[in-house]
Amino acid sequence: MENWKRGSLAILSAATRSNAEYVQSECCKLYRSEDKLCSELTSYIRSAKKMFPQFSVRPGNRQIPFGRAQNLYWSSCCTSNSHLEGLYNLQSAPYGTAARKVQRNRSFSKIEPEDVLHFQNILAVKNVIQDKDEIATANTDWMGKYRGSSPLLLRPRNTEEVSQVLKYCNTRCLAVVPQGGNTGLVGGSVPVFDEVIINLGLMNSTISFDKVSGVLVCEAGCILENLDTFLADQGYMMPIDLGAKGSCQIGGNISTNAGGIRLLRYGSLRGNVLGLEVVLANGTIVDLLGTLRKDNTGYDLKQLFIGSEGTLGIVTKVSLLVAPRLSSINLAFLACEDYLSCQRLLSEAKRQLGEIISAFEFLDHSSLDMVLSHLEGTRNPLPNSQEKFYILVETTGSNQSHDKEKLDAFLESSIQAGLIVDGSLAQDFNQIAAFWRIREGIAEALARAGAVYKYDFSLPIQHLYELVDEMRTRLGESAKVVGYGHLGDGNLHLNISAPKYDDKLLEQIEPFIYEWTANHGGSISAEHGLGLMKANHIHYSKPAEAVQLMDSLKKLLDTKGILNPYKVLPS
Amino acid sequence: MENWKRGSLAILSAATRSNAEYVQSECCKLYRSEDKLCSELTSYIRSAKKMFPQFSVRPGNRQIPFGRAQNLYWSSCCTSNSHLEGLYNLQSAPYGTAARKVQRNRSFSKIEPEDVLHFQNILAVKNVIQDKDEIATANTDWMGKYRGSSPLLLRPRNTEEVSQVLKYCNTRCLAVVPQGGNTGLVGGSVPVFDEVIINLGLMNSTISFDKVSGVLVCEAGCILENLDTFLADQGYMMPIDLGAKGSCQIGGNISTNAGGIRLLRYGSLRGNVLGLEVVLANGTIVDLLGTLRKDNTGYDLKQLFIGSEGTLGIVTKVSLLVAPRLSSINLAFLACEDYLSCQRLLSEAKRQLGEIISAFEFLDHSSLDMVLSHLEGTRNPLPNSQEKFYILVETTGSNQSHDKEKLDAFLESSIQAGLIVDGSLAQDFNQIAAFWRIREGIAEALARAGAVYKYDFSLPIQHLYELVDEMRTRLGESAKVVGYGHLGDGNLHLNISAPKYDDKLLEQIEPFIYEWTANHGGSISAEHGLGLMKANHIHYSKPAEAVQLMDSLKKLLDTKGILNPYKVLPS
Repeated sequence: MENWKRGSLAILSAATRSNAEYVQSECCKLYRSEDKLCSELTSYIRSAKKMFPQFSVRPGNRQIPFGRAQNLYWSSCCTSNSHLEGLYNLQSAPYGTAARKVQRNRSFSKIEPEDVLHFQNILAVKNVIQDKDEIATANTDWMGKYRGSSPLLLRPRNTEEVSQVLKYCNTRCLAVVPQGGNTGLVGGSVPVFDEVIINLGLMNSTISFDKVSGVLVCEAGCILENLDTFLADQGYMMPIDLGAKGSCQIGGNISTNAGGIRLLRYGSLRGNVLGLEVVLANGTIVDLLGTLRKDNTGYDLKQLFIGSEGTLGIVTKVSLLVAPRLSSINLAFLACEDYLSCQRLLSEAKRQLGEIISAFEFLDHSSLDMVLSHLEGTRNPLPNSQEKFYILVETTGSNQSHDKEKLDAFLESSIQAGLIVDGSLAQDFNQIAAFWRIREGIAEALARAGAVYKYDFSLPIQHLYELVDEMRTRLGESAKVVGYGHLGDGNLHLNISAPKYDDKLLEQIEPFIYEWTANHGGSISAEHGLGLMKANHIHYSKPAEAVQLMDSLKKLLDTKGILNPYKVLPS
Repeated sequence: MENWKRGSLAILSAATRSNAEYVQSECCKLYRSEDKLCSELTSYIRSAKKMFPQFSVRPGNRQIPFGRAQNLYWSSCCTSNSHLEGLYNLQSAPYGTAARKVQRNRSFSKIEPEDVLHFQNILAVKNVIQDKDEIATANTDWMGKYRGSSPLLLRPRNTEEVSQVLKYCNTRCLAVVPQGGNTGLVGGSVPVFDEVIINLGLMNSTISFDKVSGVLVCEAGCILENLDTFLADQGYMMPIDLGAKGSCQIGGNISTNAGGIRLLRYGSLRGNVLGLEVVLANGTIVDLLGTLRKDNTGYDLKQLFIGSEGTLGIVTKVSLLVAPRLSSINLAFLACEDYLSCQRLLSEAKRQLGEIISAFEFLDHSSLDMVLSHLEGTRNPLPNSQEKFYILVETTGSNQSHDKEKLDAFLESSIQAGLIVDGSLAQDFNQIAAFWRIREGIAEALARAGAVYKYDFSLPIQHLYELVDEMRTRLGESAKVVGYGHLGDGNLHLNISAPKYDDKLLEQIEPFIYEWTANHGGSISAEHGLGLMKANHIHYSKPAEAVQLMDSLKKLLDTKGILNPYKVLPS
């Protein structure tokens, strides 16, 4: 208990959910009085341990995202697997049904003592980790939804070590899981069974930055927020921004082709990655670490590794085109009467705000209600409105007065056209943070409200909200359906909130929700990836020929299938 | 001669270069008097034929780019291969040495009469072309640098036909060349030997456009300029713009990952392609034609086909995210004393013009001289300057007064900082066109000046111009070295102009120029691709492990190697 640090909370394991819920709520309150965090938290944890003897708490260093505005860090470390209950269940379904259906691949070897000795020869002994607490953390995703039983966590310090580890694992037929910040939402970064965990966290150096070209080269284990902070001093910023930025690593971002808030403006990560260094399953190091904006010499192999969730190779170094950091930011919180108005507002925003629009997010009234009911300190920016939809429009540019003028004109014409019926323009940074807190607090509010079934769809914009209405009709009073997301990207986060997890409810949701999405030309995973959760659902979004081709690629690059098995592709 | 159409010139074949040069010059003069084109051209061609009996001329419909501003169409059709001399040599090296070194792959079958019958069954008879003139055109690239001897040109009308053709070719082991607008610069779109030519030109329908999301779906044979014109009516534009836009097809653009003038602003084509429909070598149709901005469901297979120059599959349909068309355009022509100032100016432009910068192009004084000496009607925008470097800075935005204010402030501070010593801001559309004419006329001017060795490098910006200086020192008085290109993208077009093609001169240039580029972390092909020209030079830009992996991918997707053989990868 001596090593508590500011910004580092503990996830507590508890025998019952109500206990865990209570402790979480208390910890969150404590967090708000930031300066007193360390002492108060330590003191609280002590008393909590007395109240609930089954709690097992240790300081940790894994930061878990909880929304940009609040920037709450959540750190997990528990004494043993068997205690990992309670809080995890607050935000997630019980250990996924998809996972339960998977059988361990018997062609994989089991880790033997001589394997451990061999890894100790390759890496420093201290980087071959068998400590139960550390292993338990690495075995579990941040929601506590997925949990493996690996006995071994490796922390290589450089590409050569990654290569030697993989070469050995491939020879021995030992399955591995590449792991970055472990902030994924689909169980992609934790073992399913006893796979060796290879965590890239020690490979966190910035290698170079060219201020003229805006090209950053770094190791895969660099934390996204640290890179952004580094670039801020150079007048640049990362072209990607996620709630998880305080924990997620750039190698993981690239391996999952992470989306996030800046995609509308700076495009997909694919377009900004200039080069990668990758280690293949057999240990071959492939140097694709170009720093050039244009390079049409042969097949663009790096694209294979972007978004393949660590199943084709382990990304060890990264070269990225980053964006100039612009000084002027404006944020408006707007109310629309109906979904058609939201769509028309998006068209107008693209037309009138053209080069300065940087976010176009939406939430429905149920989402706003959820936040106002469950997140302390939030308040309705438009207290006099009871509209069905709310839009956040953000602009980012180089000249505040120009941007303000454009935004004012856009708002005025939108009001005149009846597209928006109420709105508020953030007047200072605090108000910007308060508006974002509403949008980004939805996930947290849902977690507090009870059980929640989370979905992440891309849909043609005209159909996007139909699915929310459809699910409301389908589920009736048995659950609350909320819809929010990145409207500018056609990305809907549909969440279903219920008092408790219930297999009958789940049967009403799935597979209907996937079928509906497929029938309307949507994708069952806009930005979260497939991981373990949706590997067997890939056919809803990709035709058989494509899945077959993916399977051939997997076999070509990873003959024995040791890299992140049971993920992405159907078992 | 009866079928001449406005905007359609003929490439003339001539026994000697001087004859051809003379005719070309006369044709260009005629072109300027646009309205009289058809009759005057016809009349001129008649007299030319009398003057130079070896000329062989026919009307054609292939449009060849000659710079944006002038928008000159150049159409090629000759009676037989043996006459294809003369004009072609004006702009290009003799038939490439790379090609001469390639041996026909004997595992490929030769086309038999029953094959032709089979193709006639699959396609309409009229779309199985054996006419010598049409075949000659399709066998030759627009520069006349590469020339195959295929006896057969197929024009499928839909994906199913492409699939049936490929399935048959794969079974019969008949090699094929996918062909779009045939405007490439590296011999990628013409046969090397007797490969069947599959031209996508008849598949030119727009399928859908969603005004809210800005997603365009079309067939691969759509001409880039036609798509841009279609989008203009919708308030959008293509995120890619090339000199060849009047002829090149979107399928070809994607297959070569074409760069161009808008890359600085809208990023690589990879980032804007949302989906593709592709036919594999064995005829399998893979439907990856998503229209969603975000879709993280499995490996992003479409990336394999972007930039692989038709060697892994034939792109048949395309889904693209297009950009809103903004109303305000400004263009400045600036003079810098040295290359360091150019680099610093780029940094400042990125910082001060942030969201509105849309082009940052450079040319050296030799390039300007070349244009002023060889292109009629051009004049120096800065007649009082004799500086070493010139920069074109273009801004595009949604508000003219805002953009002008930003540009003025940028120019003023750059003058004060001594980064620019002279400059001119275009006052109207004519002046914008005149400034662009200089930058985009360089290739044409070089072609008129004599023999020209053309290179297309990406280099770290600080080293980019060193190579030009190095080549000047190396070649001394034997040739003129000019450097220009997309500075904002780190893309140098290095051209070496000599009175005539000379193997000794070439030996002084290659492999030195490739080695220098590789040693300085550059790419030997920024945007042109490898095609036939540089397939055997890939090792200068990619390590052995990467080339080996590319080779495995090729074997996986195209077992018999029938798709565009001899291109991209080393023989």
